[in-house]
This record gives sequence, structure tokens and C-alpha cells, in this order.
Amino acid sequence: MLKSFHIEAPDEHIKPLIIDKIDNLTKPKGSLGTLEEIALQVALIQQTLEPVLRKPQNILFAADHGILEEGVSPTPREVTWQQVLHYTRGGAGVNVFCEQHGFGLKVVDAGVDYDFHGHPGVIDLKVRRGTRNFLHESAMTMEELELCFERGAQIVRQCITEGSNMLSFGEMGAGNTSAASVWMHCFTGIPLEKCVGAGSGLNQAGVQHKLEVLQQALNNYKGNGSVLDIMAYFGGYELVMAVGAMLQAAESRVLILVDGFLMTACMLAAAQLYPEVTRYAIYGHCGDESGHHLLLDTLHAKPLLSLGMRLGEGTGAIVSYPIVESALCMLNDMESFKKTDVTKYF
Amino acid sequence: MLKSFHIEAPDEHIKPLIIDKIDNLTKPKGSLGTLEEIALQVALIQQTLEPVLRKPQNILFAADHGILEEGVSPTPREVTWQQVLHYTRGGAGVNVFCEQHGFGLKVVDAGVDYDFHGHPGVIDLKVRRGTRNFLHESAMTMEELELCFERGAQIVRQCITEGSNMLSFGEMGAGNTSAASVWMHCFTGIPLEKCVGAGSGLNQAGVQHKLEVLQQALNNYKGNGSVLDIMAYFGGYELVMAVGAMLQAAESRVLILVDGFLMTACMLAAAQLYPEVTRYAIYGHCGDESGHHLLLDTLHAKPLLSLGMRLGEGTGAIVSYPIVESALCMLNDMESFKKTDVTKYF
Repeated sequence: MLKSFHIEAPDEHIKPLIIDKIDNLTKPKGSLGTLEEIALQVALIQQTLEPVLRKPQNILFAADHGILEEGVSPTPREVTWQQVLHYTRGGAGVNVFCEQHGFGLKVVDAGVDYDFHGHPGVIDLKVRRGTRNFLHESAMTMEELELCFERGAQIVRQCITEGSNMLSFGEMGAGNTSAASVWMHCFTGIPLEKCVGAGSGLNQAGVQHKLEVLQQALNNYKGNGSVLDIMAYFGGYELVMAVGAMLQAAESRVLILVDGFLMTACMLAAAQLYPEVTRYAIYGHCGDESGHHLLLDTLHAKPLLSLGMRLGEGTGAIVSYPIVESALCMLNDMESFKKTDVTKYF
Repeated sequence: MLKSFHIEAPDEHIKPLIIDKIDNLTKPKGSLGTLEEIALQVALIQQTLEPVLRKPQNILFAADHGILEEGVSPTPREVTWQQVLHYTRGGAGVNVFCEQHGFGLKVVDAGVDYDFHGHPGVIDLKVRRGTRNFLHESAMTMEELELCFERGAQIVRQCITEGSNMLSFGEMGAGNTSAASVWMHCFTGIPLEKCVGAGSGLNQAGVQHKLEVLQQALNNYKGNGSVLDIMAYFGGYELVMAVGAMLQAAESRVLILVDGFLMTACMLAAAQLYPEVTRYAIYGHCGDESGHHLLLDTLHAKPLLSLGMRLGEGTGAIVSYPIVESALCMLNDMESFKKTDVTKYF
């Protein structure tokens, strides 16, 4: 049975107090822009005038995709498992930025086509060695989707037990932008060609081929069109697990730092089921993947950064983390006009 | 006599080696976007494949402006000195973000209309207690401009002696966006109305009045139109001192982290005299001040952040600092494909 979640918007009773605090800090009103919005959001989530982020962790879900055999990505399949091992040894992008900002890193095998033989650095939540090819059949069964929800929620509960109240999510999976693009198209109605991009580095002909494959897959689709059916039919194990993780985070009132195109597509999918999940989301980075802007607009989301990154792994979220910290430093450490001799100038 | 500077673009011999290093890190080529550009720029400046930022400091120049008496800003004049004292006690925006990122802070009295009585937290480089009102006469004399150049350079040399190789600059000065807007208009030819904005918080009528005052000041101007004459006539002591500081930083091959509209206008002014100064600049933040986008475009500058901040003090630069650090973490700490078993996928 599909795990259900109890997700509520933060109680707004405290909101006037938070706004009053922000507006009385020694600065012109509104002059710290987005930092003020982030401070308000986090304070609301934590229901306090002095919010604190504890033990940030990045959960990196990895899996393989049946659709890869249609030539939709320049990334060879073996790169998925190679990178997973690379993450466990350090030296990948995600490791470097986790180290920089004191993030923990959990590397999760959600469905990689490789036997890690109980490697201690890889958390084994494997559903299957890669999804099926959704050009011809459903990528996953409904039972597999349910497993992904449960396991995504489980790893988040573990992080919370370890003391985290802020999580970022990332992914690794050769071919996974194909899955995310189809989700985006189905959930928003935006024309498919605007949802499909270069992924990890396709040229123009490659993007065209990818678009044709995905259009054919949509033509072949004979499902019932429900959110869950679309998630299962076109989804990836790492993506659905991230959806489950986000929903658990929101239920537990944990701040979600959303990475690039793929994690934004997961947030979109999560919001199809539980719209209030977005209240717990901060969007770290708008990447180069075409469609990401449109996707963020659909979610009324303003990303903190737009640095042309397209690495995934959670890197866009992690690199944006100090901005969230700055917002809390502002709220917690700036002086109020009430306590200083500075004339309040408006 | 006006201090002259010897500013050269970084030697590009090492550039192919830096690019080769970046392109062989374990990520799709180009997939870290702006971080790769920043890493290249800093490595070129430091002429090494392993650049390091040492002892970042924010130099905050404060001064008053004669033009304030024309009602061009909602900020009362006393806020300049009050804020200067506030910076020395901690609790202002700039203090909080300096603390967050381990920046030193130097608070410089460039020309505040107040007697700080040798306050130990305020570096006394005061030229005069505020500029003259440029609606009727030149804001400063050419001798005062020369003093500003020298003193700005002097404080940068002091920071270098203390071990810094990265500096950000900020300002405090009620009325100073008026000066910066006129500089921008004169140095770029962009129509004045596109260079004038709300400053620290004018309403629409206030912006219109500010525009009329500045247009009248330009009509009254009978100078020779040279860069130096315009800098002196419309400038502020804190702004010209920042120009001198930036030029010294570039001469000394120190990275310059540029704050918002005002510091970008100072970089523009510096580049009128020494175009190569921009090679040492990273632009931290594009603020809300209208014209800032245009100004950045003129300088072919891509800001790291666009968070709607308009506080000044250097805060936009300081908040962006971890992004620069991330670029260096990438370059210094990510593994090369040559050292791992990951298939190089392009």
C-alpha cells in the first residue's frame, strides 16, 4: 500500500512577530531582499523567532534507467556505479562542497545496475538493477513505486534521528533527465520540447533524438494518466525515492534544500500529491537545463543561485547553503533599532 | 599630484594548464558553470593551479554628501555617523556577515560629518566633514580627490601587509547613490533616468525629485568633462577612496570582490582610468537599484547573486564569498579523471 503523509502548512500565528523582528533590524526595511524572505520561511517552519539549522545532510539517490538504451544521454551506464563508488571515496563535486559547508553525505543505492557487495559507504535501498525501458513498458511496477516512497521516507527519518533539521537531496543516474522531462510535461502541460534539454551534455542532434524518443514513449503510453501511474511509468527509482524523502521531510517539518532540474521535478511530483510540501522547500539553484526556469515558475519558486551548474548530486543546493545561513545570521545576530542609538530611517 | 598605478592583465601563459586541470575534474566538462570561470580567473590572477584566498577583509568607507541637503534621500545625515559607530560595536548587517565568513572588517572614516574623537574602531582617513553640494559647486577639490586616491591605496597596502589577498569594499553615506548615478551617466552615456533609482528607499515621487536635482546639477556643470573632473565634481570621498583602493588592489594582484550598485560604479570609474582593473574583479551581487543591471552589462560583468539586496556596507559581496570559495574548492579538492576509475564521458 502506498505510504501516506500528513503534511500541513506552517502555522501562521507567529508570522507578524517574525516580520516585526525582521523589520526592526538595523537596515532599511526590505533592504536584505531574499534573505528576509528566507528568514521568514525558516522561522515559520520552525515556529520560532530564532531558527537554527542543525546537521545539514545531503542524501544522494542513485539509480539506472532502462530508457538509456535508446541513446538519450551521452553518459555511459557504468558511470552511475563508478560515480557512486567515487562518492564513497571523496573527490567528487558533491564531496568537496559537503566538506566545505559541513554537510553529511548519505549515498543511497536506489536502483543502480551494479552489485556493491555491501560496500559500507553505500546505503543499500536498491529496488532493482535499473528501471525498465519506458519506451516499451512501465519503468517500474506500482509495488516498486511504493517501495521507493517507503525507503525515501525511511532514510529521512534516520537523518532526523541523527539530529538533522535541514536536508538537501541529489541524484546520480545516467539518463534520468529523460524521466524528469516527461514528468514535467505530464504534470504541467508544458509542451514536451520545452521540457527536454541537453542533460549532462547532448549536442543539438542528440537533444532532437531524445525528444523523439520521449514523444514516442508518450504516444505508446496507455496508462490511466494518474499522478502515481505517470510517476511509476516514466520514473526512476532515485527520483521516486527523492519524492518520498521530500514528503517525509515536509511531514517532519524539516527544511528541504532543492537542487537543480531533477530535484525540482521531484518537488513538482511531490506537490502533485501534497501541495503543502512546497512550503518546506528552498530552491538552491536554477541550472542550464532548458525547462528548469519554466519548472521553477510553475512552482512560483525563486532559486537562490543561477550559476549555470548542471552536475546534479545535490551540488547546486549545497553551494547555495551559505545564503540560507546568512538569512538566519541576519535574523539571529543583527541588532534591532530598539537596542541601538541609530535613527530608524523608515 | 595624482597617484599613478601600474596595472597589468594577468599573464595568460598558464591559462591552458588551468583549463586542462578544470576540464579533467570528475564532472561533465563545463558542468560547474560559473564556478569554473571563477576558478580560472582566480588561478590566473594568482598564477597558480592551486589558488588560495587568505585573510579576506571588507573595507567599509563612510562619508557624507553635500547633495543630501537637496532631499535626494530619505536617510537623515546623522545615520552615516550613527551607523559607523554601530559597525564598531557589531550587530549591523556587515558585522554579521563578516563574522559568518571569517572576514576582517576595517571601518574607514573617509569624510563623515562627525567627530569620532579618535575612536579606536574607526580608521581616520577623513578628508573633510562631507563633500560640498554639487548642485552648486564641485563636491571636492582636485587635491581632495588626490588625497582619496592615496588613502584608499594606503589602507589596501595595509591589508596586504596583514596577509590579505582578497578584499571586498563597501560604503555607507547618506545620499551617495546620487553621486554614483551621475558617474554612471557620465561614464557610460546611458540616459540619466536609467541611472537613477530608489537608493535606500525613495518612493516614486522621491525618485522623480532626485532625477530633477541631478539633471539640474548636470546642467550647471561647467567642468572640462575629463574622468577626473567628473569624479571630483560629483563624487563622494568614500567613493573616490574606494576607487583608489580598487586600483591598488589590482596593482598588487589582489582579488576584488565588488559589492552592489555603488561599488560597481566605483569599479566603472576605476576602469575609466585603468581598464585592466576589471580583470581582478568578481561581482558579488546585482541589487535592486535600477541601473545596476545596465552598469554590470557595461562592464560585461556577471554577478554571482541577485537577491534583491540594497543595504550596501559590502554585504552583497561578503554574502557571495562562499561561492568564490566553492570555485577554489572545486579546483583544489576535486579529483581528476586521471586519478580515478571513472570513465571520462566527455
